[in-house]
Amino acid sequence: MPTASVIIPAAGQGRRFSGTEAKSGPRVPFGERLTKAFVLLAGKPVIEHTLERFCTVPAVAEVIVAVPEDGVAWVEALLAAAAARTRCRLKVVAGGTDRPESVARALEVSDPGTELVAIHDAVRPLIRREIIEEALRVAVERGAAVVGRPIDHTVKRVAAGRRVIETVPRGDLWLAQTPQVFRREVITSAYRKREEVVGAITDDAQLVEALGYEVAMVPGDAANVKITTPEDLHLCEAVLAAGWPFKE
Amino acid sequence: MPTASVIIPAAGQGRRFSGTEAKSGPRVPFGERLTKAFVLLAGKPVIEHTLERFCTVPAVAEVIVAVPEDGVAWVEALLAAAAARTRCRLKVVAGGTDRPESVARALEVSDPGTELVAIHDAVRPLIRREIIEEALRVAVERGAAVVGRPIDHTVKRVAAGRRVIETVPRGDLWLAQTPQVFRREVITSAYRKREEVVGAITDDAQLVEALGYEVAMVPGDAANVKITTPEDLHLCEAVLAAGWPFKE
Repeated sequence: MPTASVIIPAAGQGRRFSGTEAKSGPRVPFGERLTKAFVLLAGKPVIEHTLERFCTVPAVAEVIVAVPEDGVAWVEALLAAAAARTRCRLKVVAGGTDRPESVARALEVSDPGTELVAIHDAVRPLIRREIIEEALRVAVERGAAVVGRPIDHTVKRVAAGRRVIETVPRGDLWLAQTPQVFRREVITSAYRKREEVVGAITDDAQLVEALGYEVAMVPGDAANVKITTPEDLHLCEAVLAAGWPFKE
Repeated sequence: MPTASVIIPAAGQGRRFSGTEAKSGPRVPFGERLTKAFVLLAGKPVIEHTLERFCTVPAVAEVIVAVPEDGVAWVEALLAAAAARTRCRLKVVAGGTDRPESVARALEVSDPGTELVAIHDAVRPLIRREIIEEALRVAVERGAAVVGRPIDHTVKRVAAGRRVIETVPRGDLWLAQTPQVFRREVITSAYRKREEVVGAITDDAQLVEALGYEVAMVPGDAANVKITTPEDLHLCEAVLAAGWPFKE
């Protein structure tokens, strides 16, 4: 199996709980409210769970975490023990003003000797090791692999006033999660050319698609929740308390 | 608030866990494997949780459960205590060979005096009371109300070989859940004319939309999981163990 660099962008704006929601976590020095990646989940920061999931995959050569510039030293200290425990090569870098800029900066400092680059949301701590490994395997073969799930709900197109205007055929629709894994030359080329892409880009794979590369889906699971509300955090706490990952 | 009849179709084919997955639940007399609605969740059948959620809403006048014909007496006995405890008027009826036919039969036996009809998946036990009540309220006002969630993931259109062919703009897309609530005349009219609708119908609201009625979305929450895999069941167990509904 080729080796992989893993990028975890955690510098983002608008990813904070409000004051009352955030009281369970440690204070971070870069902002009066807590970014969600640093809220405590089962006693440790969400991002530490995420880091550990990747660090225990043998093919992962390094993990690069992008955080606000004034938080680099604090996050290095926060994650040092987890990285040492899992014998993980950890790099903490200053991210940019948006997610693509953070990923671009992380790419720049990544080891050019790894064949694959995986990008993963900091706030998806419940990612199974088998799914990470399958995504790496598919990316080797196809160039780009996105973990996701086929949509198993009816999809409605909704206009102003929450009025339904269409039931959208869903047979070929999937919801993308992360990790999204790319052969190094695919993602570096896509990021180099990203100014040429018009329209809103909502995930890394879309950039790669827009430039004509093939992207393959990899089936993930429902536990790979993106923590965006206090309720999501409750859910992840409950899943961990129940013994997740149930078999690994 | 007008009163409502609640229909819970639980006669469906293909809604069973396999033998090894189903060992946690009671045996049902209608089939060698267990339909998911009757698997045990935190010590009682999934459908009993679902029933109780609706029975504790004051506007709910009756709950009609559609099951396989040879299971009617068994399900009546299974749910009698829960119905009595919540002072719920429960009707158990023989469903049809598919979900629309089961709903149609339940509609026929429903009390014509209720103004609203709510239809809810048997395997969505974690529905919050506030959301049920909001759906009833919106249905009174707009004629039809569907609980759902805006899609907050990137959506991919996927071809053969799991190849991504498009990132679908998702700004106006919602995932439909249940309950789906209708003014009585809207849903009875839609079901009467359902033979006229061409193409696949994946939810009750789609039938109503196809016949030109207005349908409004009502924001639900992430806990309203549809139990379709053993993993979903684990998740619901965990959420209940953590104290769901956290505030009600």
